[in-house]
Amino acid sequence: MNNLNKNCAICGFLASKKFQIVETEYWKVDICQNQEYLGRSYVTLKRHCPDLSELTDMEWSDLKQLIIILEKVYKKTFDAAHFNWTCLMNDAYKENPPFPHVHWHLRPRYSHNVEFADIIFKDLEFGHHYARSTDRILDLPEKDLLKIVAEIKKHL
Amino acid sequence: MNNLNKNCAICGFLASKKFQIVETEYWKVDICQNQEYLGRSYVTLKRHCPDLSELTDMEWSDLKQLIIILEKVYKKTFDAAHFNWTCLMNDAYKENPPFPHVHWHLRPRYSHNVEFADIIFKDLEFGHHYARSTDRILDLPEKDLLKIVAEIKKHL
Repeated sequence: MNNLNKNCAICGFLASKKFQIVETEYWKVDICQNQEYLGRSYVTLKRHCPDLSELTDMEWSDLKQLIIILEKVYKKTFDAAHFNWTCLMNDAYKENPPFPHVHWHLRPRYSHNVEFADIIFKDLEFGHHYARSTDRILDLPEKDLLKIVAEIKKHL
Repeated sequence: MNNLNKNCAICGFLASKKFQIVETEYWKVDICQNQEYLGRSYVTLKRHCPDLSELTDMEWSDLKQLIIILEKVYKKTFDAAHFNWTCLMNDAYKENPPFPHVHWHLRPRYSHNVEFADIIFKDLEFGHHYARSTDRILDLPEKDLLKIVAEIKKHL
């Protein structure tokens, strides 16, 4: 993989396929350990790029196709009602100089409880802003994360 | 304007130019009353469309050009450090049936205080998740909002 930055924590994570749901030519999707919203995941650009303004047209258009795929698969797999997409990159600005790397947080939102892998997932904030990870955490062990990934992959 | 939905609160707001910063063929940008992050604004699709998956290729590509314009103008006008882009549409799901309408929240983020219109704007959460409007509000009167809009427009 080219165009990586040795100072960037996110570049360092791109090689790992363990928690990967899907990848395209330009983007990689991985399940997030905090599953307070079932299926919550990261959508990460596969090269180091500091902001949305600098994405290429190909990367931008590939992202649109990926959004279509992901929204469809989450509706099919867990009956998600809608989606919160955020591109923030705040953490990078804790450092000086910062090394931001474009990535999205995808939180599927649910109008009803979903039972999966013997866990009942509740979207306690449905219709409202998502809970930040400082408010509500549902960190799952690896075995449950991998079950969620496998279930989503079945419907891709 | 075509393709509006009479049940949608956002469609109803599209005609107003009062707090508009800029518009493109497909998107309209308006200043938000809550200026806890100086320049915070809404980027709204000019037709009723319920989710990102259903944007046309033209709308998606126009959004990318607008992101470039806005990030540049906020850096130039107020020296913003970076940007939080979110597409949530939670409010629509308070209703049943919901009438979501694609729009983005743009929060410029600042590593330093900015004085403008005799107000000192502080990004108290820089490097961290933005404060939700339930946490921190800086609702400005119309005259100050219009000063901010005018200042941004100068640099467009």
